[in-house]
Amino acid sequence: MGKLWGGRFDKGTNRFIEEYTESISFDQRLFKEDIKGSIAHCRMLIKQGIIPEEEGKKIISALEEILKEAEEKGIPCDPSYEDIHTYIESRLREKVGDIAGKLHTARSRNDQIVLDVKLYMKREIAQIISLIEELQKNLVKKAEEEIDTILPGFTHLQHAQPVSLAFHLLAYFWMLERDRGRFKDALKRLDENPLGSCALAGTALPIDRFYTTELLGFEKPTENAMDTVSNRDFILEFLSTAGIAMINLSRLCEEMVIWSSPEFSFVELSDEVCTGSSIMPQKKNPDVAELTRGKVGRVIGNLVSLLVTLKGLPLSYNRDLQEDKEPLFDTADTLKGALKAVSLMIEGAKFNRERMRLMAKEGFTEATDLADYLVKKGIPFREAHRIIGEIVKYCIANSKRLDELSLTEYKKFCQEFEEDLYKAIDIENVVDSRKSYGGTSRTLLKEQIERIKKERGWQKG
Amino acid sequence: MGKLWGGRFDKGTNRFIEEYTESISFDQRLFKEDIKGSIAHCRMLIKQGIIPEEEGKKIISALEEILKEAEEKGIPCDPSYEDIHTYIESRLREKVGDIAGKLHTARSRNDQIVLDVKLYMKREIAQIISLIEELQKNLVKKAEEEIDTILPGFTHLQHAQPVSLAFHLLAYFWMLERDRGRFKDALKRLDENPLGSCALAGTALPIDRFYTTELLGFEKPTENAMDTVSNRDFILEFLSTAGIAMINLSRLCEEMVIWSSPEFSFVELSDEVCTGSSIMPQKKNPDVAELTRGKVGRVIGNLVSLLVTLKGLPLSYNRDLQEDKEPLFDTADTLKGALKAVSLMIEGAKFNRERMRLMAKEGFTEATDLADYLVKKGIPFREAHRIIGEIVKYCIANSKRLDELSLTEYKKFCQEFEEDLYKAIDIENVVDSRKSYGGTSRTLLKEQIERIKKERGWQKG
Amino acid sequence: MGKLWGGRFDKGTNRFIEEYTESISFDQRLFKEDIKGSIAHCRMLIKQGIIPEEEGKKIISALEEILKEAEEKGIPCDPSYEDIHTYIESRLREKVGDIAGKLHTARSRNDQIVLDVKLYMKREIAQIISLIEELQKNLVKKAEEEIDTILPGFTHLQHAQPVSLAFHLLAYFWMLERDRGRFKDALKRLDENPLGSCALAGTALPIDRFYTTELLGFEKPTENAMDTVSNRDFILEFLSTAGIAMINLSRLCEEMVIWSSPEFSFVELSDEVCTGSSIMPQKKNPDVAELTRGKVGRVIGNLVSLLVTLKGLPLSYNRDLQEDKEPLFDTADTLKGALKAVSLMIEGAKFNRERMRLMAKEGFTEATDLADYLVKKGIPFREAHRIIGEIVKYCIANSKRLDELSLTEYKKFCQEFEEDLYKAIDIENVVDSRKSYGGTSRTLLKEQIERIKKERGWQKG
Amino acid sequence: MGKLWGGRFDKGTNRFIEEYTESISFDQRLFKEDIKGSIAHCRMLIKQGIIPEEEGKKIISALEEILKEAEEKGIPCDPSYEDIHTYIESRLREKVGDIAGKLHTARSRNDQIVLDVKLYMKREIAQIISLIEELQKNLVKKAEEEIDTILPGFTHLQHAQPVSLAFHLLAYFWMLERDRGRFKDALKRLDENPLGSCALAGTALPIDRFYTTELLGFEKPTENAMDTVSNRDFILEFLSTAGIAMINLSRLCEEMVIWSSPEFSFVELSDEVCTGSSIMPQKKNPDVAELTRGKVGRVIGNLVSLLVTLKGLPLSYNRDLQEDKEPLFDTADTLKGALKAVSLMIEGAKFNRERMRLMAKEGFTEATDLADYLVKKGIPFREAHRIIGEIVKYCIANSKRLDELSLTEYKKFCQEFEEDLYKAIDIENVVDSRKSYGGTSRTLLKEQIERIKKERGWQKG
Repeated sequence: MGKLWGGRFDKGTNRFIEEYTESISFDQRLFKEDIKGSIAHCRMLIKQGIIPEEEGKKIISALEEILKEAEEKGIPCDPSYEDIHTYIESRLREKVGDIAGKLHTARSRNDQIVLDVKLYMKREIAQIISLIEELQKNLVKKAEEEIDTILPGFTHLQHAQPVSLAFHLLAYFWMLERDRGRFKDALKRLDENPLGSCALAGTALPIDRFYTTELLGFEKPTENAMDTVSNRDFILEFLSTAGIAMINLSRLCEEMVIWSSPEFSFVELSDEVCTGSSIMPQKKNPDVAELTRGKVGRVIGNLVSLLVTLKGLPLSYNRDLQEDKEPLFDTADTLKGALKAVSLMIEGAKFNRERMRLMAKEGFTEATDLADYLVKKGIPFREAHRIIGEIVKYCIANSKRLDELSLTEYKKFCQEFEEDLYKAIDIENVVDSRKSYGGTSRTLLKEQIERIKKERGWQKG
Repeated sequence: MGKLWGGRFDKGTNRFIEEYTESISFDQRLFKEDIKGSIAHCRMLIKQGIIPEEEGKKIISALEEILKEAEEKGIPCDPSYEDIHTYIESRLREKVGDIAGKLHTARSRNDQIVLDVKLYMKREIAQIISLIEELQKNLVKKAEEEIDTILPGFTHLQHAQPVSLAFHLLAYFWMLERDRGRFKDALKRLDENPLGSCALAGTALPIDRFYTTELLGFEKPTENAMDTVSNRDFILEFLSTAGIAMINLSRLCEEMVIWSSPEFSFVELSDEVCTGSSIMPQKKNPDVAELTRGKVGRVIGNLVSLLVTLKGLPLSYNRDLQEDKEPLFDTADTLKGALKAVSLMIEGAKFNRERMRLMAKEGFTEATDLADYLVKKGIPFREAHRIIGEIVKYCIANSKRLDELSLTEYKKFCQEFEEDLYKAIDIENVVDSRKSYGGTSRTLLKEQIERIKKERGWQKG
Repeated sequence: MGKLWGGRFDKGTNRFIEEYTESISFDQRLFKEDIKGSIAHCRMLIKQGIIPEEEGKKIISALEEILKEAEEKGIPCDPSYEDIHTYIESRLREKVGDIAGKLHTARSRNDQIVLDVKLYMKREIAQIISLIEELQKNLVKKAEEEIDTILPGFTHLQHAQPVSLAFHLLAYFWMLERDRGRFKDALKRLDENPLGSCALAGTALPIDRFYTTELLGFEKPTENAMDTVSNRDFILEFLSTAGIAMINLSRLCEEMVIWSSPEFSFVELSDEVCTGSSIMPQKKNPDVAELTRGKVGRVIGNLVSLLVTLKGLPLSYNRDLQEDKEPLFDTADTLKGALKAVSLMIEGAKFNRERMRLMAKEGFTEATDLADYLVKKGIPFREAHRIIGEIVKYCIANSKRLDELSLTEYKKFCQEFEEDLYKAIDIENVVDSRKSYGGTSRTLLKEQIERIKKERGWQKG
Repeated sequence: MGKLWGGRFDKGTNRFIEEYTESISFDQRLFKEDIKGSIAHCRMLIKQGIIPEEEGKKIISALEEILKEAEEKGIPCDPSYEDIHTYIESRLREKVGDIAGKLHTARSRNDQIVLDVKLYMKREIAQIISLIEELQKNLVKKAEEEIDTILPGFTHLQHAQPVSLAFHLLAYFWMLERDRGRFKDALKRLDENPLGSCALAGTALPIDRFYTTELLGFEKPTENAMDTVSNRDFILEFLSTAGIAMINLSRLCEEMVIWSSPEFSFVELSDEVCTGSSIMPQKKNPDVAELTRGKVGRVIGNLVSLLVTLKGLPLSYNRDLQEDKEPLFDTADTLKGALKAVSLMIEGAKFNRERMRLMAKEGFTEATDLADYLVKKGIPFREAHRIIGEIVKYCIANSKRLDELSLTEYKKFCQEFEEDLYKAIDIENVVDSRKSYGGTSRTLLKEQIERIKKERGWQKG
């Protein structure tokens, strides 16, 4: 297949180089966007009288045919086509002959590829936001079901204070809420139409960039053609936003893996998201959680990949930029898959309420409340902290829990202790007492869940 | 110095471990934020009647003294203090005795450190935005001065089409504009008060988080205490935003280095931003451009550093999180330095107008316009492209520029050429003809510059 | 298709999860290694009497058939097969029935996959070393041809001192020599047979790991089964070694891009490794150099990807490890492609000898020699350096080169200058005078080239 | 303080730029290496008659004084000194006057800094290797003590098969063994003397690089001066080798964190490596394990930092290279600290033998052996696997362990079961039966420990 260039060249590229430099094997994913962009471009050329209406219409209907064909049969992965633009123009030429060349008027592959990528990203980001919301919904639903489940809240993977499982699950809701905000901001920032920037400097032909902006659903045209064809920072923003989201998911997955271990036994994941072992018949492995945790690697890798590629590139277009697409596609696919997988995992998770409750009492998780109890009696916090430390040592030495010590024993450490201390360290009371805004009190959690459901319109869900 | 904990421990940490785990050598940078946060916390404790007003006032005035001392004499870097919170509480205890312990009521180092970091970041981001605007201003000023300077626009570091230097400089204005937007979004997202989240679950004490939110100038309190003490994604967002900004700066610096080479001689950087060689007396090296380009490494490294640290961490606080501060501080410092340095570099750059203009004519940069000329005569673009390719080959073989061929020579390639072709490829005409929105036409550039200056209030600058 | 596990499972994985967790789409690349390993395993099982000879032979000949089929028709990419091991066992079962199950005796997918990957890597590393040597050979050949070409040696992309182009090209030879050493070390370190480690703990069956070690051509068996199935550090070593090699190549490519610019015009790359522009008919773009420079991004990204994945994983096998293969395959492919492409580029490069020589005289590259000249006359180096600095300033102010100043002018700066200074700054003399070991003197370069050719057996090349 | 350059400059660098570009705040760590290198250089200059013996001796004894002073009083961190070389030369000038300048004969900061860095790295790598060996020794010692401790071997953090704790600990021994090999290879590869490469091309002065090679203890001189001053790949190799080692340590630390949780209770770390909580008096947090796991971030970040910095740099020296030192220093410090900290942690760890043993029986870890039992009775492995899967399901449904089922119950699943099955699944038997090379059998482990101790000469330890 003839290259779109070649006039001044004596010697063709060799076969190996053709394969080394081709992009059609991956940029063919953009064929819809490419054709959509070409149709809008062609409409504008007609409207501006740059190409005759009759020819323009032929081109448009041929493009629509090509689109249909490609949707049905796919794109042949022949490296001699170099890239998706070349392939489509070549098909167009087969259909309409030499007037195919007119489509390239006032356009370059430099602005065309940025357009394709932006159209692709707008769709992908919208889907990602939707999947984040789906996962948030599942978390809220699970939180609602598990509001009375009490588990040890951990710091340093040690028991710290008892909390409601709803509180723990909602922590992830709020992480995802920031991820959602970042994607929305990224979407807004990239919503500028690159088409009409041409090779790097705009064009002398009387094009109308506001018209294609409208046709393609962008907010406005880009402001500087050279920046437009050089810039990939909007992809970097997407990749880092996705990387942060995957980091957040990796934390949830780590917890599911740890909680699934026989030692923890906090959760039983559904068979759907687990697999077995080819050699050990008893195994039920939390594969989806592990794999998702593992996949954060590729998403961070993709981010680093494009950062390295862009580092130190002079303006404007350089062939290095061809390397932007594979990390972008892989990250979008991976993140969407991970969000779906984690949603399924949360949906099917059965939390072991008894085990969690049992462990919530282990590890002296009421110790802070015992200290607060003394503070309320007028002991300075640091002093109270020291006293409780001594009591904990005593408990360990005597293999007792805090609620198993007698008042007499308590009084040995501090005279301020009274019978009401036992109420202060009752586990339900402890959880519900944390009424400060954002705390684990079940009343607060219920209010928060109601508020979220109302804002999102999930009441009837 | 006694640890803030220790009650249940039999054996002290050893000296090496003390040094290995300390953070005071770097978190002392947060002493102002730490004290500011403590004062706000103390005011709230007084208002809520959690601590007696008299004691609270003593604490506040002692904290103000400590702040003054630290501003004057700095913080002793003694690893036995473990961290800045411990140091400040220890100084407080020296001043007010045991009531110092009361400041720790309804607070943990877990929410305290997040507060300190957020207060620090709010100030730093505001400064960064300001420095971005300063650099943008210098770019616009330079663009205004160099609007009539024509240079070759490059793609693939080959001459593509002639452009105005203003156009090239404004490309960076628009890159920075996106960086500025990203920092603004990051700032808005982190503007939630963590104080009162305590260890991980909130507190049973009747604190008022909305009051500290107001005192500390946050938009609102955070919504989930466990998320609050676990979350560092707002730092990741800052680090990646800074990374993208540095990548953009690295591209400008790369151009300054290339343009300073004897072969290019497009720019003479001011002595201020250059250094010489200890062995080669003739050298004038663009050190600031190189060093800034090099410093993108550490900023990307810092981003990766925290991504790796956060990967797979279960909730809530884990000691790993201590590793968040050094990359944050280093990135903020580096980016601020780089923005200042590049501002100075742009301000002092003398562009070699004659050399640029001369080179703008080399490399057949008018070839696109010659093709467009044929298109206007009705030749399909692809055919025109092929013809011009042949002409360029002919020029190379005969060592001629496009404006040096005779009409007769032109007609050998295509009969449509007429005398007016020479006007079409006049370099000023070529630049000014690119009137599509965002193009290099000087009229458009002037309008854009005026618009920017008006929006930013830079008219009288 | 039935999973290799499933006994204790009530509910199948759903279709989405099947696709999310499958690896056959990429691990099918290992089918040869997988079958090769299975055959060796089967031979050992027969030899040890673990399976009957007759059955074993059936399995082996079926495996050989499957290999032939796969080589001819490829592997169907059906996610229900989960992974390549499952696919091959399933084909085996179709051919030999239930005895297929016996192949899995004393083996797990955990040791099997490490075996496949190691066999793959041994072959790939051998190829990479060969391609490095090929590129080194091309560099040496080019160096030999260009020994008399003098160009400015650069520091800070400023002219420093004149050097032979052979010297510059050989700098890359020596970089590649370290890359070659690193790959050799990596190859040696991974040359330990994992087969027989089974799931994680070895087996109770009387297998002979030394026999499979011999059959498969490994140096020795691994020493600890748990380490064997957990460990991927040998892949990290490969990925970082490849990353360093790509960084080195990116530097060569950067130089080819800069040297191809019209301003430099130091090199004309062959048409083979360049492409044109779809809109600018005059362009000849150094695409292969740019793309290779850009591809360093993905190779670094792949390294980071696996580092992130492995961070913080407990022993032994975790599903996260499935993410090791794609970065590995992509890096091996990319590096091999890059080495070939750069070899071709160097082979076809035409260096513009006149232009290089002309520029070697610009930029006062003889200044160091003029300083050395004064040092030989007894002036301390720092003083000489200062004097030459003054002379350079004078030359710039008067637009003269150093060889254009008269002796009288020289004497104004220092009385020690005599007529022989002109010889000292003759460009050929300058280059040849640098006779210190490793210097640019052409005599030394010739000797080095001879030595390399002799060591490598390239004399008759 | 006067710069080492400056002759041709009209305008000084400004104060901000001076601070921006200085390196003395970090390269002062190289003062010993810098002086050591200078003394060797000076000896060579004397020997070759390049500088008079008397002057050379003055310089050497002044350098020795400066060394002593710096060791006692440190280096003033004044950015006007620019770098450590400038500072030392300035001190030298104060002591010996103008002859100080002669030390700079036949040397440039370009080769000098590479020398300093290599001398530093040789020392650091030797220390790192030593610390790795120390940790290996502690692991072996602990393995010896815990050889009879049986714990569940995990895959997917699920119980797989019972193993000896010695086996688990030795897995880390073998990981570290590869790390040690990588550092040894890196050390060998960088052991080439850069001194005498001068600015980039060698020198015309009759220096003797073999003499300084001998004086400084290098194996040989570098082969190409341009490569020598451009190359930093030996630092990349160090950084990636350290990164891999930290990844390995992060896995061990993750296990210590998980094993310390109340749910696991497999290990009690010593107080030395733990800290408490300021708010929760009962906490004992595995801080050293967490912090070390967290510090893998900075080490990977440092690697990425230098990779990014080096990407696409043309030859030879560029100021970007100044950014090589901070990541190098930080990585060396971090890795040494981490190795020491982990050594201490392992040394003081008390493993909970009863708890481990108890859990080893949970989770059907003998299932593989039960399958192998059937295989020995002639059942194909896959069929045996299926049968055991059914039995496990039955056990779960009836809350029984495998050793609690009666023979009658077993026979319902397969008639081949006999009384001897109970012996086959006895936990000690299971561990000891895995006698394949590298397996967990205690006999094999004892042999391996003896072999290691003998090879390393640790018998009397």
